[in-house]
Amino acid sequence: MKRHELERLAKHYRAGKVTLADFCAQVLQPTSEQLSDTTLDVDRARRCGFPEVVFGEGKSVETIVEIFRKQQEHGDKSLATRIDAAKGAALKEALPAGIYHEKGRTFRMPNDEPTWGNVGLVTAGTSDLPVAEEARETLRWMGIEPVFIQDVGVAGPHRFGEQVHKLSDADAVIVVAGMEGALPSVAGGHLACPVIAVPTSVGYGASFQGVAALLGMLNSCASNVTVVNIDAGFKGAYLAGLISLRVLQAKSQPES
Amino acid sequence: MKRHELERLAKHYRAGKVTLADFCAQVLQPTSEQLSDTTLDVDRARRCGFPEVVFGEGKSVETIVEIFRKQQEHGDKSLATRIDAAKGAALKEALPAGIYHEKGRTFRMPNDEPTWGNVGLVTAGTSDLPVAEEARETLRWMGIEPVFIQDVGVAGPHRFGEQVHKLSDADAVIVVAGMEGALPSVAGGHLACPVIAVPTSVGYGASFQGVAALLGMLNSCASNVTVVNIDAGFKGAYLAGLISLRVLQAKSQPES
Amino acid sequence: MKRHELERLAKHYRAGKVTLADFCAQVLQPTSEQLSDTTLDVDRARRCGFPEVVFGEGKSVETIVEIFRKQQEHGDKSLATRIDAAKGAALKEALPAGIYHEKGRTFRMPNDEPTWGNVGLVTAGTSDLPVAEEARETLRWMGIEPVFIQDVGVAGPHRFGEQVHKLSDADAVIVVAGMEGALPSVAGGHLACPVIAVPTSVGYGASFQGVAALLGMLNSCASNVTVVNIDAGFKGAYLAGLISLRVLQAKSQPES
Amino acid sequence: MKRHELERLAKHYRAGKVTLADFCAQVLQPTSEQLSDTTLDVDRARRCGFPEVVFGEGKSVETIVEIFRKQQEHGDKSLATRIDAAKGAALKEALPAGIYHEKGRTFRMPNDEPTWGNVGLVTAGTSDLPVAEEARETLRWMGIEPVFIQDVGVAGPHRFGEQVHKLSDADAVIVVAGMEGALPSVAGGHLACPVIAVPTSVGYGASFQGVAALLGMLNSCASNVTVVNIDAGFKGAYLAGLISLRVLQAKSQPES
Amino acid sequence: MKRHELERLAKHYRAGKVTLADFCAQVLQPTSEQLSDTTLDVDRARRCGFPEVVFGEGKSVETIVEIFRKQQEHGDKSLATRIDAAKGAALKEALPAGIYHEKGRTFRMPNDEPTWGNVGLVTAGTSDLPVAEEARETLRWMGIEPVFIQDVGVAGPHRFGEQVHKLSDADAVIVVAGMEGALPSVAGGHLACPVIAVPTSVGYGASFQGVAALLGMLNSCASNVTVVNIDAGFKGAYLAGLISLRVLQAKSQPES
Amino acid sequence: MKRHELERLAKHYRAGKVTLADFCAQVLQPTSEQLSDTTLDVDRARRCGFPEVVFGEGKSVETIVEIFRKQQEHGDKSLATRIDAAKGAALKEALPAGIYHEKGRTFRMPNDEPTWGNVGLVTAGTSDLPVAEEARETLRWMGIEPVFIQDVGVAGPHRFGEQVHKLSDADAVIVVAGMEGALPSVAGGHLACPVIAVPTSVGYGASFQGVAALLGMLNSCASNVTVVNIDAGFKGAYLAGLISLRVLQAKSQPES
Amino acid sequence: MKRHELERLAKHYRAGKVTLADFCAQVLQPTSEQLSDTTLDVDRARRCGFPEVVFGEGKSVETIVEIFRKQQEHGDKSLATRIDAAKGAALKEALPAGIYHEKGRTFRMPNDEPTWGNVGLVTAGTSDLPVAEEARETLRWMGIEPVFIQDVGVAGPHRFGEQVHKLSDADAVIVVAGMEGALPSVAGGHLACPVIAVPTSVGYGASFQGVAALLGMLNSCASNVTVVNIDAGFKGAYLAGLISLRVLQAKSQPES
Amino acid sequence: MKRHELERLAKHYRAGKVTLADFCAQVLQPTSEQLSDTTLDVDRARRCGFPEVVFGEGKSVETIVEIFRKQQEHGDKSLATRIDAAKGAALKEALPAGIYHEKGRTFRMPNDEPTWGNVGLVTAGTSDLPVAEEARETLRWMGIEPVFIQDVGVAGPHRFGEQVHKLSDADAVIVVAGMEGALPSVAGGHLACPVIAVPTSVGYGASFQGVAALLGMLNSCASNVTVVNIDAGFKGAYLAGLISLRVLQAKSQPES
Repeated sequence: MKRHELERLAKHYRAGKVTLADFCAQVLQPTSEQLSDTTLDVDRARRCGFPEVVFGEGKSVETIVEIFRKQQEHGDKSLATRIDAAKGAALKEALPAGIYHEKGRTFRMPNDEPTWGNVGLVTAGTSDLPVAEEARETLRWMGIEPVFIQDVGVAGPHRFGEQVHKLSDADAVIVVAGMEGALPSVAGGHLACPVIAVPTSVGYGASFQGVAALLGMLNSCASNVTVVNIDAGFKGAYLAGLISLRVLQAKSQPES
Repeated sequence: MKRHELERLAKHYRAGKVTLADFCAQVLQPTSEQLSDTTLDVDRARRCGFPEVVFGEGKSVETIVEIFRKQQEHGDKSLATRIDAAKGAALKEALPAGIYHEKGRTFRMPNDEPTWGNVGLVTAGTSDLPVAEEARETLRWMGIEPVFIQDVGVAGPHRFGEQVHKLSDADAVIVVAGMEGALPSVAGGHLACPVIAVPTSVGYGASFQGVAALLGMLNSCASNVTVVNIDAGFKGAYLAGLISLRVLQAKSQPES
Repeated sequence: MKRHELERLAKHYRAGKVTLADFCAQVLQPTSEQLSDTTLDVDRARRCGFPEVVFGEGKSVETIVEIFRKQQEHGDKSLATRIDAAKGAALKEALPAGIYHEKGRTFRMPNDEPTWGNVGLVTAGTSDLPVAEEARETLRWMGIEPVFIQDVGVAGPHRFGEQVHKLSDADAVIVVAGMEGALPSVAGGHLACPVIAVPTSVGYGASFQGVAALLGMLNSCASNVTVVNIDAGFKGAYLAGLISLRVLQAKSQPES
Repeated sequence: MKRHELERLAKHYRAGKVTLADFCAQVLQPTSEQLSDTTLDVDRARRCGFPEVVFGEGKSVETIVEIFRKQQEHGDKSLATRIDAAKGAALKEALPAGIYHEKGRTFRMPNDEPTWGNVGLVTAGTSDLPVAEEARETLRWMGIEPVFIQDVGVAGPHRFGEQVHKLSDADAVIVVAGMEGALPSVAGGHLACPVIAVPTSVGYGASFQGVAALLGMLNSCASNVTVVNIDAGFKGAYLAGLISLRVLQAKSQPES
Repeated sequence: MKRHELERLAKHYRAGKVTLADFCAQVLQPTSEQLSDTTLDVDRARRCGFPEVVFGEGKSVETIVEIFRKQQEHGDKSLATRIDAAKGAALKEALPAGIYHEKGRTFRMPNDEPTWGNVGLVTAGTSDLPVAEEARETLRWMGIEPVFIQDVGVAGPHRFGEQVHKLSDADAVIVVAGMEGALPSVAGGHLACPVIAVPTSVGYGASFQGVAALLGMLNSCASNVTVVNIDAGFKGAYLAGLISLRVLQAKSQPES
Repeated sequence: MKRHELERLAKHYRAGKVTLADFCAQVLQPTSEQLSDTTLDVDRARRCGFPEVVFGEGKSVETIVEIFRKQQEHGDKSLATRIDAAKGAALKEALPAGIYHEKGRTFRMPNDEPTWGNVGLVTAGTSDLPVAEEARETLRWMGIEPVFIQDVGVAGPHRFGEQVHKLSDADAVIVVAGMEGALPSVAGGHLACPVIAVPTSVGYGASFQGVAALLGMLNSCASNVTVVNIDAGFKGAYLAGLISLRVLQAKSQPES
Repeated sequence: MKRHELERLAKHYRAGKVTLADFCAQVLQPTSEQLSDTTLDVDRARRCGFPEVVFGEGKSVETIVEIFRKQQEHGDKSLATRIDAAKGAALKEALPAGIYHEKGRTFRMPNDEPTWGNVGLVTAGTSDLPVAEEARETLRWMGIEPVFIQDVGVAGPHRFGEQVHKLSDADAVIVVAGMEGALPSVAGGHLACPVIAVPTSVGYGASFQGVAALLGMLNSCASNVTVVNIDAGFKGAYLAGLISLRVLQAKSQPES
Repeated sequence: MKRHELERLAKHYRAGKVTLADFCAQVLQPTSEQLSDTTLDVDRARRCGFPEVVFGEGKSVETIVEIFRKQQEHGDKSLATRIDAAKGAALKEALPAGIYHEKGRTFRMPNDEPTWGNVGLVTAGTSDLPVAEEARETLRWMGIEPVFIQDVGVAGPHRFGEQVHKLSDADAVIVVAGMEGALPSVAGGHLACPVIAVPTSVGYGASFQGVAALLGMLNSCASNVTVVNIDAGFKGAYLAGLISLRVLQAKSQPES
């Protein structure tokens, strides 16, 4: 609570416009709701721009449905990640308005069309697709349809160069790569916007389920590369979406 | 080279406006310059927004001076990181127009005043200061003076909350933390902009020179947290600066 | 054997009150019993406050039943952890007086009601529940019903703050968290009692099955945080229970 | 702020007993103070039982002196750890009332005599002494003189057994050990109170600067063993002191 | 080939007692036999005391039977480890004279009775039994019946002490332990013979499938503890058997 | 595009021999083709000597068939690795001209006979066979039949020595080994050509799925040993094949 | 205390031959002595064959001298390891009867001549010499002069073969090796006695200060290889000495 | 010894052309020489193409001089690596015909001019120069002057492309890179010869002294990339030189 809000509220209370009970409730307002197994953060959208997203692993269908319904009550959009096919089908039955994406393992609602799109999404190989699809669905949930470029890893170094012009206006570019994870560095060397690198667990042997790609990206010699967790398509997309949203808002609120 | 550029150039050549030699030189234009020990990327500012930055470790004063002078010729700004005190003094003597920052171990030129500032810079503890200073000098080199909040780690959880309002308008917030690296998660839970987490090697024992903080940040349960390398103050700042610059540009180029 | 016990016994033997055989048996008394595959420590409750607890993984139902029956003979309570559903059903059939908890994967007997409760038990996320249930059942076996607060991780930093007053009288608080494991640090910053952090294997990618949480907790900047093994709900509870029991005993044995 | 406090304050304000400015200041009270490089948590003792402790590494003498003086103003005791000999001498000169302990590398004030002592402190080997001394000085700062048993590691398994009776009344026992870190397990097998294991970086080769001991302790088969960071003598002591303090308080406030 | 053997052979050849072909064959004698997928080392028993032992994982029943039959031809005993139940049944059918041990997952032949026994075999917990059984079967294959002590881990520290006298004459003692792997250190502290520590993958979380036990054993503060690979019951037994065999031989060949 | 090619093309364009559209298309020629989920590098054979090889894991049969058919159109040979039995059968049905190798898990086409062979292929143990078969099929795809020596690991050190003469003319030798991975060092000590070491994930416990072998090979004291990824039979073969091909070409193009 | 000893003692006490005090003292006999910073295990030689050995790192000259003098009183031999040159000189001055070995960094006394020798000691490279010297001095302290073979690593595989006959009678062979640590496997393949592998920290890069060698040795495919800690020359020697001593004793106590 | 050699020798002996002593000496010929601390492999050049190379770390000047002189006697060239400046000066004084290279830390003799050169040597950054110089000196010792391209890392992705034509005829290309080690993959994508990747310890934080680069290279998606140890400039060069030498020989011995 900011000082000026408190001052106004205090004056109202002194003036008898609010009761003591209401006054206390407002100063000490609870900002979460207690569900069966969950303490839902219903203030998240106000604070952070978007409501709480559900990490689906280890949660029952009942728990997820309860959360989605509560978010609907609050007028919030909903997204759950790491939803396998069986859980996806059950959610679709309980919440027919939602969209399940099998490859990306996401469930989101409502089913709105993306309305803008200054985000790039690039994969190094065909096997990185599931992580990229999680990212794409997350962006769509935020209202963004990304520019999508597939399978342009560094073993064929010209492939990225042939399509890089499609990314020249992007506010942020997500690069999804496994194995040695070199593509974000190359992308970073061509681009003037932030590159959000998403290492994937694609590879074998000394890739250590994505550790090689993660380390490669953290040590990128390109200055504009930042990194999220292994296989974290959701998080890469969320950050790119936040950046693009902020730029969009700036366009409509010009520095006067 | 884009197609329309090539078409125009080809027509000029056909029309005899450019010689064959010039035509070939322009199509195959070299975009780097060969210095004594360095292949300087003189096209970086055009491609990526800012010129090449010098990683000072393992480079001689002569090498760095040669690079800075060449960048000056090209009208580029210069920044070198990881410059110890002795090297800093030698650079200052060779390039009196530059600024050496001892705690941040940076050398930059020219000495322009920062002109705008929508970036937050937060440290968890006093021992994280050198990394934060590297970040601050990088931002200043980009023209930004950040909002700086110090020593508000989670052991005193209210300390961050007391100052978070200073960050409410930031386009991006850099959070520098060692030990368990928990502050970025808490910051992420309060903010609607990207949080760029910089793990530091501050700590002992099972901190493993910053690995604990790095892992903590990569696994942050806050959706808007992204991570750079351990002690990479420069990189955290560079990314935040890129984001803020893009928002600034958007404000002056409103979506009409 | 303490000296005064030995002296008394020696005098009794000298006085002919005990035979040589009995004398030797008592001085060299065996304090374990040899079962089929087990050397049961039947002296544990005397030495350590509570009898031996059975780690159920890799033990057959027969082995566990044999141990429980032997402990019953000695008047000891019994607890087994890491009991899957099939083993749980078989134990319930063999020992109907016991209680099987499916989520917590524990089997305990007898079925006594908890009689006191100054221990807090907190989880960061809904997926940490199985580990928390192992902890809760362990506490109940010790006679304690904990104050239980769920799903208050740091991405919604106010959620813990809203309920922290429930823990103000706790003798010890167990905090169960996966991913970056930041909640114990925040809890430690609010509380004046020991915080026993239990890292869980919840997470993905660079969480490395709980290593990220474990390292975060070991490096906590809060002074009152101590750590047990990954997913060690039992151990966290056992320690908290020991502390609370000691405080309870102190209350009934005032410093006069 | 708790509800009943807020209610009373609101009534006072309504009744004109406090001004609007005072009312707001009290509701939104700042609980930290801004020093040169530090945001000092001056509310720590109220919340957590003891004031903030200074991690001395990477902090200048000036910074530490400034913190100690501010704590003195607030009536708080002060402790700094990881203070090398040079820094220790400088602190002693600036704050003559403080005590510097060279082996333990601590500086504390004021110089009060320990007044009670139900904590055990045990080392496995002579080389673990510096970590044990950090623990002992921390306990003294809390007002406790521990029962100290040295060099009773498991290679001579009877050595611990010969002295274990000295620990029979302890509220908590700190066990400091390097190499394979087996002593806490053995201690845990003899004791009915919490054993706080402090791994040390003593050893060579595959001890990996304390990692072997740390892992050994985390995997202890004794139920009452909990672990802190490598070489974290301070933290081990702080936890043991908190437990013992709580028991002491319970003795003076009997369950009536 | 030793020089005196060569000299004699050369003289025989010169004297016409052996042909050139035989001479060459003997000097260049092949010491392995080529089977379908295997290059069998048929000289191993002469060089190393015992014939080649088959690591069963990833080998077909056919391959193992072929090796056993070839060893039979050479008059060698046979042992295969890591044989699951299905493979064990198939081997038993093909080679009825062999013995399959299900818990130890070994197959050996012929079925001779152990004839001597100065080796100790100790486990820390009941879950370590399969590794201990692999060791016991290996010893039996070498002709040794070990003194077997089970489930005497350090959480009940007196349990080992109660039985240690059974090991007082052992030439070598194998100690099998998981979790923190502390028992070999304690055993080493009681015994005057080599202690061969076998870490097991028993445990969870930060035991990292036996790494914690392995490191603990490598860092043992007891001087007489040596270590083999995780779960390497075979190797621990083989070494103990070699030592005991050498002592047995020495008894029959007194230093005159 | 090389300068002299560009000059000739420019002159042709100026002379009207090529249209502007063709001129641009040739200068900016795309060298990859866009398939459903793949950006196929159709220029690879020209640049690198052999066409793109398909990493089969995580790719559908449809995707692989589409790639193979496109390569056929371009007159390229095809190879896919990591193809399990089910996928292999489906590919065989769709592309009857191809060869599926079950142990090596490869699919290649066309079915040409190897035509030359100066490459050695050696395994340490029978369990390393699947990786060696992947290597052998790769070599055959390149037109090479290797000299194959099996099961000659260092526990029977004479076994390799008995057959090393078969490798005396090899241009490169691939050594496939798991466990401690010592065979490449021994091979390197006997040979004058490059030894390409392929660590396998064969082993248990502290082999860490091939990490022990990998580290052993990287640290080989033999100067002529180089290393590829764990289980990377394909890569080891590809490198050996490239070397041998280059030597073959040199023989037909003598330095005149 | 064994039962028959206790019976005899009890009868003596009953018969009045010993006082109650003496009786208790003998039953509860202390077996360690308390020095300034040390709890010296004066019973070690009786239990384990050799007295306690001092790990010199982190111990002062005073502490070591005090221990040596106390051992002298008890008639025990003394050995300290990890003694740098300065400490060595100081010890030599305080204890002129001792021998300091600079390369091996050991100090031992008294200065007896080794009297027997059936132990082999082999190094892979010249840089492994310091660890080998620690082993050699330890053996001499035990009364053994080893057969010493230097610099016969596997890059020149015949070098070991040329000298292996010198080891044919050894009771145990210590093999000291860094880098990939392959020599113990090769040695194991030639010998019928235990091979005690000592990994050294010699190497660079991915040798990780001896980890590569350690892992190689733990995964040795030779059945008779066991391993001690990195750089643990002392421990390797101690084990080999114990084995050889036991064989020696067996020769003088023939199985009758 | 090959069979036909043995047959001829045997016949000579039978015919009395060689004595028994000579016959035995030749069959059992020693192929190493015993120096003070070294067992010099004087047969290496015959077996492996080049004589033994000295790893200079941990060897005294005397030892190295003794080896070089012995190699001179045998007509072998000499090379020592890891020679610091002080040792380099001492070697230069003792062996004036040798060449010390300060940056590459090598000493070699004799001082012959390189005579051919089909090897490429590429660095990613200026800080990788010392490792590259070790490689260059090794190549010169083998008689090769490499094509050297510096500082063309992927952050300026066009820099490598601009110079790649210089490598089009190379028999092998060495790529030296630190940080994320991405350059070898890009180089591999452009080249038809083997790429030998040398990771360097250049970088900070999560580069872990070259581990990130090493893993990146091992997981390269380019098929023609193989890897040597971190900072192993010598080994990378040795392998490239072997390959190029073999091609050179092939050119002079055409397949007829």
